[in-house]
Amino acid sequence: MNKERILAAIKKTVACDTPVALHEPLFSGNEWKYVKECLDTGWVSSVGEYVDRFEQMIVSLTGVKKAVAVINGTAALHISLLSAGVRPDDEVLVPALTFVATANAVVYCGAVPHFVDSEEKTLGLDPHKLAQYLTETGELRDDACFNRKTGRRIRAVIPVHIFGHPVDLDPLKTICERFWLTLIEDAAESIGSYYKGRHTGNWGKLAILSFNGNKTITTGGGGAILTNDESLGNELKHITTTAKIPHPWEYRHDRIGYNYRMPNINAALGCAQLEQLETLIQRKRRLADLYEEAFHGIEGVRFFKEQSFARSNYWLNVLLLDPACEWLRDDLLELLNSHKIMARPAWTLMHRLAMFTQCPRMDLGTAESLERRIINIPSSPYL
Amino acid sequence: MNKERILAAIKKTVACDTPVALHEPLFSGNEWKYVKECLDTGWVSSVGEYVDRFEQMIVSLTGVKKAVAVINGTAALHISLLSAGVRPDDEVLVPALTFVATANAVVYCGAVPHFVDSEEKTLGLDPHKLAQYLTETGELRDDACFNRKTGRRIRAVIPVHIFGHPVDLDPLKTICERFWLTLIEDAAESIGSYYKGRHTGNWGKLAILSFNGNKTITTGGGGAILTNDESLGNELKHITTTAKIPHPWEYRHDRIGYNYRMPNINAALGCAQLEQLETLIQRKRRLADLYEEAFHGIEGVRFFKEQSFARSNYWLNVLLLDPACEWLRDDLLELLNSHKIMARPAWTLMHRLAMFTQCPRMDLGTAESLERRIINIPSSPYL
Repeated sequence: MNKERILAAIKKTVACDTPVALHEPLFSGNEWKYVKECLDTGWVSSVGEYVDRFEQMIVSLTGVKKAVAVINGTAALHISLLSAGVRPDDEVLVPALTFVATANAVVYCGAVPHFVDSEEKTLGLDPHKLAQYLTETGELRDDACFNRKTGRRIRAVIPVHIFGHPVDLDPLKTICERFWLTLIEDAAESIGSYYKGRHTGNWGKLAILSFNGNKTITTGGGGAILTNDESLGNELKHITTTAKIPHPWEYRHDRIGYNYRMPNINAALGCAQLEQLETLIQRKRRLADLYEEAFHGIEGVRFFKEQSFARSNYWLNVLLLDPACEWLRDDLLELLNSHKIMARPAWTLMHRLAMFTQCPRMDLGTAESLERRIINIPSSPYL
Repeated sequence: MNKERILAAIKKTVACDTPVALHEPLFSGNEWKYVKECLDTGWVSSVGEYVDRFEQMIVSLTGVKKAVAVINGTAALHISLLSAGVRPDDEVLVPALTFVATANAVVYCGAVPHFVDSEEKTLGLDPHKLAQYLTETGELRDDACFNRKTGRRIRAVIPVHIFGHPVDLDPLKTICERFWLTLIEDAAESIGSYYKGRHTGNWGKLAILSFNGNKTITTGGGGAILTNDESLGNELKHITTTAKIPHPWEYRHDRIGYNYRMPNINAALGCAQLEQLETLIQRKRRLADLYEEAFHGIEGVRFFKEQSFARSNYWLNVLLLDPACEWLRDDLLELLNSHKIMARPAWTLMHRLAMFTQCPRMDLGTAESLERRIINIPSSPYL
């Protein structure tokens, strides 16, 4: 593997002055107009129409029946898990290769993350390996799946569309039916990504999006919960807005609620960003094509491409080292970062973090290999 | 009580076209400038200097050693309670007369809110009645206080500076020392309010502020955690930012963290608002004076004024009905709202809400009386 050739290929592709960030937002539409309108009317918080409009735009984009805008993807996961009936001492299947929020949200419910391996073709949860594992480890009783070893109920599974690349959802849905698991899609990274022609986040009983500043589109901080169950959707809205019973002046709440509503000023930014989503994704897909071309013929690495069943948003582009070259990962990271080309490895796998070392897990051989071989390279839509 | 005279007094005082909101923000400073700068640089989320600046401004204002900006007051309460060591099955003393977030945050920690009465002179927690109650109900064992009836540990107390009026903190501090309780001030409503010359929120081990859209100053949605313990302050920052260990590219987290950081665009708004705080409060205090004058001589009601130990921000102005007139509360609310003067009663007391009816509580006679007699009237700083 020739590190200098890789550096040169990236430099040529991004073709801009250093430093080059990993991912920065692009504001080239109505951002200022909408935000200014919030300031001019004073409607920056819980009054104002941008939250409704943003939710409607997400519905149109993803095709789900109901979207609820919240303060971030983590909050969206937390409420999705609660609404899926996840209770203290349940287990929830989560890929070991993900951002920490996926596993943290399980703990917020008092439940235990149970780590699952990934597959190399999607970087996401491996449904075939999971089916095999659950056949051995899961015990079906009274329309529920229990972990034979811990005795705890396995209630749900959260596939994460890593770096924007859709998990292979069809076989996963079959597993969910067979083992009575609720499917909650973590589509935090995959807005604008499709699996077999349908938007990611429109496959599970619940799904979440994120609009953090490093995402394809941003609201500053923000997220959304998606569902095709309209009455569940109304419930999600209720419990993310302190469970207040509507009344012109009375303050009465009918259950433990959360203060997770997205402020109007953040939703205003989101509306302007969503209007440009298709353009942003075209630019990101073009950048991916350029990277693919640039890395062609460089030994020891390959540019990670979408599967035929997927249309990826290429949120964060991935350079995948050959197993034989994985020992060069940190050298390459040092080289790129020292040239102010921001690059980073995948997240530390969940089962290696101090708070999760005791959590149940299957063999994580593929995730461990991917962790040693993934390098994320600059992916901003303006490149 | 003459309802029409009350209506006329309010109309004369606010002297503006209807509808008159209860509380709306005023943006007359650098709001545009700072927010636009965020959009122009692309720094709307976790990159950008406004969060640091906002935290520094809060430190200067309140005199605490460390302030951590978060997404809202509820999140601030949640983290304060966790950091105070509140654990599942502990009890936390909370006034029955408060917004629901105070009690919800206790439940987020798996603990149980234990409701405390208010005193008429501050509308907040009654320290003298609490001392009496704890002497009977609390049992001191191993430097900790236990509830004799439930056997649970009583870990902390959360005074709430209701509608901006400071709780009588000195006697409360004495109680905290005597009964080994951690003092967490809920100063969500009292930015710019002082108790004996020191800012509210600078009296407890921890305290919180809120910058929701209905507050004296707003960030859209936002809050802050305050402490005079610097190392605790650093810990608060760490756990509200996903507990990530700083590193140029590695993603590693050393405990269960929360995604509670305030986005930079919201902090930008906050900086502009904080610059104007003193002016806003002068206007609000002037409005309070005008109300006092206008209600002077109207039988059956009085305008609620600060105590001599307090300087209140008069966040939401309070009209207090005499006990003999309390049965007219809803008629008066109907009248005012039908004339598009927004008015509302106090929040439904916590122990009446379905999810809290089984929680322990002392006699709540004063809170119950106040609930029947409080009416909030328009309080925006532009009035």
